[in-house]
Amino acid sequence: MIETPYLLFLGDAPDQLAVKVAQGIRDWRPENVVGQLRLPGCQADVKVPDMDLAEARAAGAKTLVIGVANRGGVISDSWKAELHTALEQGFDLASGLHSLLRDEQDLVATAKAHGRMLHDVRVPSVKYPIANGKKRSGKRVLAVGTDCSVGKMYTALAMDKDMRARGMKSTFRATGQTGILVTGDGVPLDAVIADFMAGSVEWLTPDNDDDHWDHIEGQGSLFHASFSGVTMALIHGGQPDALILSHEPTRAHMRGLPDYQLPTLEALRDMALPLARIVNPGCEVVGIAVNTSAWGEDQALSYLEDVERRMGLPACDPFRQGAGRLVDALDAIG
Amino acid sequence: MIETPYLLFLGDAPDQLAVKVAQGIRDWRPENVVGQLRLPGCQADVKVPDMDLAEARAAGAKTLVIGVANRGGVISDSWKAELHTALEQGFDLASGLHSLLRDEQDLVATAKAHGRMLHDVRVPSVKYPIANGKKRSGKRVLAVGTDCSVGKMYTALAMDKDMRARGMKSTFRATGQTGILVTGDGVPLDAVIADFMAGSVEWLTPDNDDDHWDHIEGQGSLFHASFSGVTMALIHGGQPDALILSHEPTRAHMRGLPDYQLPTLEALRDMALPLARIVNPGCEVVGIAVNTSAWGEDQALSYLEDVERRMGLPACDPFRQGAGRLVDALDAIG
Repeated sequence: MIETPYLLFLGDAPDQLAVKVAQGIRDWRPENVVGQLRLPGCQADVKVPDMDLAEARAAGAKTLVIGVANRGGVISDSWKAELHTALEQGFDLASGLHSLLRDEQDLVATAKAHGRMLHDVRVPSVKYPIANGKKRSGKRVLAVGTDCSVGKMYTALAMDKDMRARGMKSTFRATGQTGILVTGDGVPLDAVIADFMAGSVEWLTPDNDDDHWDHIEGQGSLFHASFSGVTMALIHGGQPDALILSHEPTRAHMRGLPDYQLPTLEALRDMALPLARIVNPGCEVVGIAVNTSAWGEDQALSYLEDVERRMGLPACDPFRQGAGRLVDALDAIG
Repeated sequence: MIETPYLLFLGDAPDQLAVKVAQGIRDWRPENVVGQLRLPGCQADVKVPDMDLAEARAAGAKTLVIGVANRGGVISDSWKAELHTALEQGFDLASGLHSLLRDEQDLVATAKAHGRMLHDVRVPSVKYPIANGKKRSGKRVLAVGTDCSVGKMYTALAMDKDMRARGMKSTFRATGQTGILVTGDGVPLDAVIADFMAGSVEWLTPDNDDDHWDHIEGQGSLFHASFSGVTMALIHGGQPDALILSHEPTRAHMRGLPDYQLPTLEALRDMALPLARIVNPGCEVVGIAVNTSAWGEDQALSYLEDVERRMGLPACDPFRQGAGRLVDALDAIG
């Protein structure tokens, strides 16, 4: 639906976390990316060639993907000049922000004048049902985090990649804008109406072969005051057979909430598992995924060893090391 | 905004729980109700005079309120003839259903032809913020239930009524269609976009006098697979200082989920309190509200005594007995 390859728009991102959409596309579909476009003041870098619009067009780019998110998900006025120029030069635009391209009358007018498309992947395109809580065939795994943006999507994509390499039946199920931009399909869960959240997750992960695994993309955190309801709906709509605990060990406070500390992995386990067992009494916590990107190899491995001993569960960094040990743990219960 | 008094439309409700909207209006604003309109096969009764449309008009009714909800919240085809006739006879229509009156082209046409209004109280009229998790002044209490439809709204309305009678500062904060129809104000929480749920509850319960109590209307249940995400957002957006546990002791299974048993009051306490303390470490469970409407006085009192002894907390039926003992418990921590 969205034409590839992409030029990734990083805008005036204040930090690397703000460009997780762009980073995700670059990491999981590098073949679809020709470069990045950064405005003055941009503090992020996804390590692809910097290009202006003309260079990217010459390199074949068809769509400018807004790969940056600011708090509240609005389309910043400081991006507008570049977005208009992109449309004039022949790019389509794609966005997963809450604020929609289609609601910006100036962009709509420019797109129309130049025959270009505006793609809002955040908008639900399906009328989801209310969840019925019924047991479904097939297996499901969900990563739950001590915080938002700790690597839950990466963990799911890495487990899916490892399972496919082993010839196991496996599907990544996207629930956010990045995942949908990466895979072209999914539920934009944080834009779903409250009553239909859990139902949309049931819809996304239907009956399947007994030996098939759905890797459901996690969202938010049970410990994050802004988004815990979304996490709750994933746990109860997803009916996971297995939980992975996701953590980023260097964070000073909960993302966007300076007054809140991150919980321990033990606290996360003790909160999430009883909630998951309401809908799937057989659910188990099978492993721990740590985002160690802030550290060198030695510090990362030392931390993972400590966590593994402390928690009695396999612990790894799926991006640094691959998700093989998590898949081993899933295979053992499958 | 909505013209009173009302004629309450019960439609072809299959049971009494299906008409909780009508029952709530009748119990808390009886002065606004002239009667009820029931279709053939209706199994519900809110104990006001049965009237047809002409009789209700003669008695002064101005608005036909859809006081019945079916699963999924759609406007049933079997109601349509009566709704058209009501508009033709001079009634406005008001509804809190998910499916909107304004989306039914035939009703829109009839309303327009006869100069009548269609009120959809379910539709959010405010652009809510994302929750910031910041501590607010004033006190808040939230009822959490073992299931949906166990009396959480009644409990909040009864506590508010008792506090006002004592001269305490107190506000009922509606989060559902009945509460909004009763009070004329509130957040239609189950129609809010997922990312803004907790923020809408923060917006609904802002800073207030230190000795003011907000009685936040509860929704769903942490143990209900379909709606637990909404409950979670109420707990984290509401930042309650006090929780009331709500229960209906005769129910055979979770509402709408035949495969799920209700949790014990102990399980509800142990699940809800740690979640509430994430955002308000001082939160306490202060009392238990039991809907004993299925029982006679002796059985009800005996059950309440047992629960009170077992849980070590005041237990009462706020509708049968008033909420005085719950307000005593709140006053003691206020």
